[in-house]
This record gives sequence, structure tokens and C-alpha cells, in this order.
Amino acid sequence: MSENHLAPVAPVPSPASPAEPPYYAVVFTSARTDLDPDGYTDTARHLSDLVRSIPGFLGEDFAHTPGGLAISVAYFRDLAGIEEWRRHPEHLDAKRRGRERWYERYVIHIARVESSHGFARA
Amino acid sequence: MSENHLAPVAPVPSPASPAEPPYYAVVFTSARTDLDPDGYTDTARHLSDLVRSIPGFLGEDFAHTPGGLAISVAYFRDLAGIEEWRRHPEHLDAKRRGRERWYERYVIHIARVESSHGFARA
Repeated sequence: MSENHLAPVAPVPSPASPAEPPYYAVVFTSARTDLDPDGYTDTARHLSDLVRSIPGFLGEDFAHTPGGLAISVAYFRDLAGIEEWRRHPEHLDAKRRGRERWYERYVIHIARVESSHGFARA
Repeated sequence: MSENHLAPVAPVPSPASPAEPPYYAVVFTSARTDLDPDGYTDTARHLSDLVRSIPGFLGEDFAHTPGGLAISVAYFRDLAGIEEWRRHPEHLDAKRRGRERWYERYVIHIARVESSHGFARA
């Protein structure tokens, strides 16, 4: 009884932990084109690493319905971090390529988080 | 040349339109259990209809990575609408069932949107 013979299962995905308010959320909702999916994936992965170097970056959530909307939410301690990320040369370049090729449409909302809480099954 | 002989294709999904700030966003990120998926789906559909009756409801975005995170973002004109939705009896009942059965974990962020903009391919 000391061994677990069940096959390994994928870990339960975790939302980013709620931080102490106030903090900021950048909500990015998008619908993609069919163009250059590999370029998109490589760039998305690179930017997801890069944003972690921005001072005040707190975490990120991402979900994508196949054939449907994608939503990413990045959390920052303050607007200065969001501004630094917005002006980062590699991010600017990726956004230009995104408008040229990858996105059919998108909406960005920049919001100040006033309260947050989490639930986890016991 | 007046007819289009291409097969019909699924419409491009659309993010909710950006509203005039300030407005509020409720970001709900979740990881589900495997329990009672039909109950979850029926309830989610019903709540998605019901929230449209809340005064000041502006729109909603949803995405779900298969086997991964789900993110819903509901937009409201003011905190009064969020509070009315939070206290709605059917919503309260669904949240109780969600904690009992459907959610492994979730995080909710309530945020005041200070700026927003959109892009659409020409």
C-alpha cells in the first residue's frame, strides 16, 4: 500500500495567486488569424519569459478556446511596470507583427484591482 | 461573380467591445474538477443569460484551454451592478455548488478599468 500504481496525471493548472490590492491587471482578449501560427507561438513563449523581468510583474493567466477567443491577464504592482512593458522594444516589435499577421481583432483593458480572493479545494 | 461559392465558415469570435472608462471588470480564473460536467455546462449557460439582466452589465469574454485554465471577464458600468450580481440568489446557489463540485481552485479580481482600446483588421 506504500506505492501508487496509478499512471501519472497532469498537474491541476493554477491561476496566478491574488496579490495585495491595489495592483493592476492588463486584460488582453484576442481572436487570431490562421497566419503564421509557429511565429505566433514562438513569440508568445518568448514574451511570456520576457515579461517576468519587468519590475513589479506579479503573474499572468492565459486561456484559449480552440477556434475561439484567447484571454491573457497580466498582473503588475503599478502602472510604471505596465508602461515599461508597453515600451519594451521586443514587445513593441511583437505587437507590430501581431497587427500585421496574427490578430483578427483584440481589445486591451488596463484596470486597477481593488479586491481579490481565491478558493482552493481542501 | 455575384455569388460566393465558398463553403460557409464559422464567424470570427469577437471580444466584448471596450466601453468608455471608468467601468469595472470581474476577472474569474478557474481550474475545474472532472465532476458533473453537464451540471456545470447547464449552469454556466444559464448564468451567462442571467447576468445580462443586471443593470450596468456591459459584456463578457470567456476562454477555456482544454485541460487547463478557464478565464471569464465580465464588464459592468459600476460596483453597484457587481454587488447586485454577487448577491443574486441563483448566482449564490451556483457558487455554492461550484465550490462543492466544479472547481478545484479559482481566483476573482475586481478591478476598475482606467483605459481600454481595440484593434480590428481592416
